[in-house]
Amino acid sequence: MYLELDGRGPLYDQLTRALKASILDGRIAAGTQLPPTRELADELDLSRTTVLAAYEQLRAEGFIAGRVGSGSYVSDLQARPCNHHAETSIPAPSRYAQRAREVRNWDIPRIHRGLRYNLQYGNPLVNPALNNAWGRELARAANYTRLVVNEVAGLNALRKQTCDYLARRRGVQAEPDDLLIVCGTQQAITLISRVLLEEGDRVVLEEPHYFGAHQALVAHGVELVAIRTDEQGILCSELPEQSPRLIYVTPSHQFPTGSILSLQRRKELLRYAEQHQCWIVEDDYDGEFSYESQPMPALRSLDHGDRVIYVGTFSKVMFGGLRLAYMVLPAALRVDFRNAKYLGDMSCPVIEQSALAHFMEDGGFERHLRLSRKELKSRREALIAGLKEHARDRVEIADTPAGMHLVVWLPGYDQTRCDALIAYAHDQGLGLYPMAPLYLHAPPRPGLMLGYCSLSVTEIREAMQLFGQCLDHFQAR
Amino acid sequence: MYLELDGRGPLYDQLTRALKASILDGRIAAGTQLPPTRELADELDLSRTTVLAAYEQLRAEGFIAGRVGSGSYVSDLQARPCNHHAETSIPAPSRYAQRAREVRNWDIPRIHRGLRYNLQYGNPLVNPALNNAWGRELARAANYTRLVVNEVAGLNALRKQTCDYLARRRGVQAEPDDLLIVCGTQQAITLISRVLLEEGDRVVLEEPHYFGAHQALVAHGVELVAIRTDEQGILCSELPEQSPRLIYVTPSHQFPTGSILSLQRRKELLRYAEQHQCWIVEDDYDGEFSYESQPMPALRSLDHGDRVIYVGTFSKVMFGGLRLAYMVLPAALRVDFRNAKYLGDMSCPVIEQSALAHFMEDGGFERHLRLSRKELKSRREALIAGLKEHARDRVEIADTPAGMHLVVWLPGYDQTRCDALIAYAHDQGLGLYPMAPLYLHAPPRPGLMLGYCSLSVTEIREAMQLFGQCLDHFQAR
Repeated sequence: MYLELDGRGPLYDQLTRALKASILDGRIAAGTQLPPTRELADELDLSRTTVLAAYEQLRAEGFIAGRVGSGSYVSDLQARPCNHHAETSIPAPSRYAQRAREVRNWDIPRIHRGLRYNLQYGNPLVNPALNNAWGRELARAANYTRLVVNEVAGLNALRKQTCDYLARRRGVQAEPDDLLIVCGTQQAITLISRVLLEEGDRVVLEEPHYFGAHQALVAHGVELVAIRTDEQGILCSELPEQSPRLIYVTPSHQFPTGSILSLQRRKELLRYAEQHQCWIVEDDYDGEFSYESQPMPALRSLDHGDRVIYVGTFSKVMFGGLRLAYMVLPAALRVDFRNAKYLGDMSCPVIEQSALAHFMEDGGFERHLRLSRKELKSRREALIAGLKEHARDRVEIADTPAGMHLVVWLPGYDQTRCDALIAYAHDQGLGLYPMAPLYLHAPPRPGLMLGYCSLSVTEIREAMQLFGQCLDHFQAR
Repeated sequence: MYLELDGRGPLYDQLTRALKASILDGRIAAGTQLPPTRELADELDLSRTTVLAAYEQLRAEGFIAGRVGSGSYVSDLQARPCNHHAETSIPAPSRYAQRAREVRNWDIPRIHRGLRYNLQYGNPLVNPALNNAWGRELARAANYTRLVVNEVAGLNALRKQTCDYLARRRGVQAEPDDLLIVCGTQQAITLISRVLLEEGDRVVLEEPHYFGAHQALVAHGVELVAIRTDEQGILCSELPEQSPRLIYVTPSHQFPTGSILSLQRRKELLRYAEQHQCWIVEDDYDGEFSYESQPMPALRSLDHGDRVIYVGTFSKVMFGGLRLAYMVLPAALRVDFRNAKYLGDMSCPVIEQSALAHFMEDGGFERHLRLSRKELKSRREALIAGLKEHARDRVEIADTPAGMHLVVWLPGYDQTRCDALIAYAHDQGLGLYPMAPLYLHAPPRPGLMLGYCSLSVTEIREAMQLFGQCLDHFQAR
């Protein structure tokens, strides 16, 4: 099937138009079975979601029939209700859903699959011992927990353990009543949007920033203001004069560049929030993984105005599929967030909370953290050593001894060359990810985000050797 | 502490006013520690949430200081920033949060605790064998599942098992791609609101109806139209002329009255939805528990216009703390709901999904269903026998051989007398729940909702004897 995308608007729209044109001019005849979404996605190098969305659109408009799974067939358009009829019979979804379509169809970096070395951020540190220990905790919890819907705010035992942990490790003083257990950081962002933000409200983000927050906020309909960051974190001097409702920051380890917000900037930020009467969200997504010094205390611990909403997650340190995170809430917001959580999904699953509370109480959690920290530190060191040996001065390493990923800048590259490097590396079996999609505006310089969490030290060494060869290839051209 | 509530507006407002008055006129002196929320709640016979909300409000306005947990102390108002200052420094929450405050402070029926016999709907069928089997499934899943964030739509294995189950038991033909796994029915309702409804949109509910849906929809800001139901379900002839965006129904077992939507009404309802271009939500919350005949196929199975969003839940048949439900989505809505789920919380926890898929595949789930059905049937029979013996003609039983609860009407009672009966029964150790809060408008007649799920046959017999004595007492007066 020959299809040409016209490059206008979201990819799924382009694909929909291309398929429609082919159907209307008869290149694809009535009754033809369209290729399975996965196949077409591979062929056109699009994500499967994009192809799925295009097929849905064609189906909704009556161009194709049949269900995904059992095959999609081109309709006989003469025999069908005409196009515009089918369109009007389906009421438009909400403004939220329309914006969500847009953001979900952004040209996000393709996720590489089946490569020898995949430096994707978010892939987990695989640890069979954790699977095992966690399985035991779950079985225990299933037998010891009352299997009813638990308190909205989360299981009390887990909130208590989390408070102890926060006081000890992050310098955050909180009572169990200040806490809300949520299903991951993404849910925290959505609850924050619902409780605090109307369409059109102004929200400050760091530039660059976490893509999932960006998407959720745009879908909610807010106006985003992206403020530059440097090696000391967000540039407070560039905060807008017009008060935003909310400032979303990652002070302990700026996502993704890795800088740590300096004490002076922390104070400036809190002062700004006080003056402008806005809330601050402190996303402490990987504050647990700091490899050298004592980590800097959380912004929340400096916050005397009770304006910081602290968000921490268990999914990063345990595993992504856990979907458990927590919020420390200012007193004035506690009731509203509990209401939103209750109306949204009542509360988080009870057994996993109970298992985690016991895992923390029993010391298993901290043990797991220590081991992970040690393992990640050696992976990080192997990555840096490999970069120094094979990439040498052709990359600039954004160095913070923390986290589960590293950013390298590519001096002398423009975005086109960076994209070509990524494509070339892909062909060599190396999955690299660009920084560009993590910016609201054009990125000041091209860079790569290297996730080292899921590769062994040996694999990292080999991956860096391959990376060096890819850079050689581009230098030679 | 002597406090008198003035009876105007939500309970937490009344309590806030009463406490403020006492502080302002010096009856509660500066520096006094307020009683713990739980204690005050017990003393005033209010829910703890109400007391918590009042304390939060007083704290936000500067009347009290300290945190819940470590004690709340009355502020020295002379030394504090004045009241209106404290109020203005906290920006108002979103319209959603403000509406949520209202609905969460409605005077919902108090949940009885510590009574000998509690006929609360929603209390689970306790079954240690399930805890055990489920613990084994979880431990197994923890060892066999890749612990990453799974597909947005839900684990493929679980969607496949659910499709098989739906085809076999509910007559619903669906492909895994039609399904979205969600964190409980409450989340389904919230996703439906976000994807399909704007503030001010019209939504049809049955009268009476599920309280949680009512609350979530009002918080979302829609205009509710409640349509009466009779023993054949919703009265389609009374559906509004002005098109709603959505109709929310419980066809297989009207919640809470128990009537089954007749085939003719099902067809009428689908025709109305087609003519008015609106969506139907079919909440099949306990379709699994039918004790006599083959249950009527789901509305979704008659829906040739692809307008029915089918919602089923695992939490009812397994246990409340599981928080797993599923939606069967019309093709035109699939992408939008996946987007909203992704932006909302990415996906449901992976291990519980994997465990459930295996539990279903292995036959354990159906075995558990059969045993539960048998046990619930005998509890239901004991309840009806007890009602016939002890309540006799003083109650009218709304009889449908299905579900986990029963409704009885109280002929000759008005709402005041019904409330007095509930209060009297409470003093005798019997927890009864009124129907009134499940209506949008004034209920046509007083009734009780009797949940029999968590009491043994013997307990049910004793409870009915006690119920008979309570009725005797009211007859004698």
